[in-house]
Amino acid sequence: MLDRIDHIGVATEDLDASLALYERSLGMPVAHRETVESQGVEAVLLDVGEGHVELLRPLGSDTPVGRFLAKNGPGLHHVAYAVSDIERALGLFKESGIELIDNEPRVGIRDSRVAFLHPRSTGGVLTEIVEPAEGH
Amino acid sequence: MLDRIDHIGVATEDLDASLALYERSLGMPVAHRETVESQGVEAVLLDVGEGHVELLRPLGSDTPVGRFLAKNGPGLHHVAYAVSDIERALGLFKESGIELIDNEPRVGIRDSRVAFLHPRSTGGVLTEIVEPAEGH
Repeated sequence: MLDRIDHIGVATEDLDASLALYERSLGMPVAHRETVESQGVEAVLLDVGEGHVELLRPLGSDTPVGRFLAKNGPGLHHVAYAVSDIERALGLFKESGIELIDNEPRVGIRDSRVAFLHPRSTGGVLTEIVEPAEGH
Repeated sequence: MLDRIDHIGVATEDLDASLALYERSLGMPVAHRETVESQGVEAVLLDVGEGHVELLRPLGSDTPVGRFLAKNGPGLHHVAYAVSDIERALGLFKESGIELIDNEPRVGIRDSRVAFLHPRSTGGVLTEIVEPAEGH
């Protein structure tokens, strides 16, 4: 049902420093940069194999990533798995008793369709599923 | 240099509950189970595409994962990237100023060769590089 690890999300206060690390020191090419107002972040996707690292800088302290940084500091924020049919995946998760943050898919970065599962029901791991747009 | 996301490591106090979640609810087949004494964990690898989820249960409270759980609770512990030549990767990271936890590769799960980079120099993300054994 889950095709692969699509990306890991990394929370950062300093996008330039994180970009220098991932692009220059770790050698990942930048694939995409976007401000996702609905999620309160400026995000950068870097390629690693078929997957990505998604750097997340909060647009303000009163955003999900802003609150995460205040509580935990910078670091791993979430993991995302790619699916080919997000409605079907959400239906199966609901049936199996997983608590969803998003009952319906919403638009994510690069025109993907995404939904988050609640870490309360996924062992403390904020888990995203993503149906990439055509071509990604 | 980094070929792909090899796995994410997930710290758990309850391996059976985590297995039920990842195997039954999320549909990932179990690929391998091993007690890695040198790292103080019982670990289970589940397949997702070419990558894996690595569930980590500490063998005691005075282990790296035991201390992580005491401080953070269960959740995302580290990310690992696959490389084909771990010595070369470590050399390049050192040159670029990244602080290494392991200056030399050591044996990891399933006879892989692994090394950890210090989260102090990787934006708070505990980062592992892994040269998988032949056939994995």
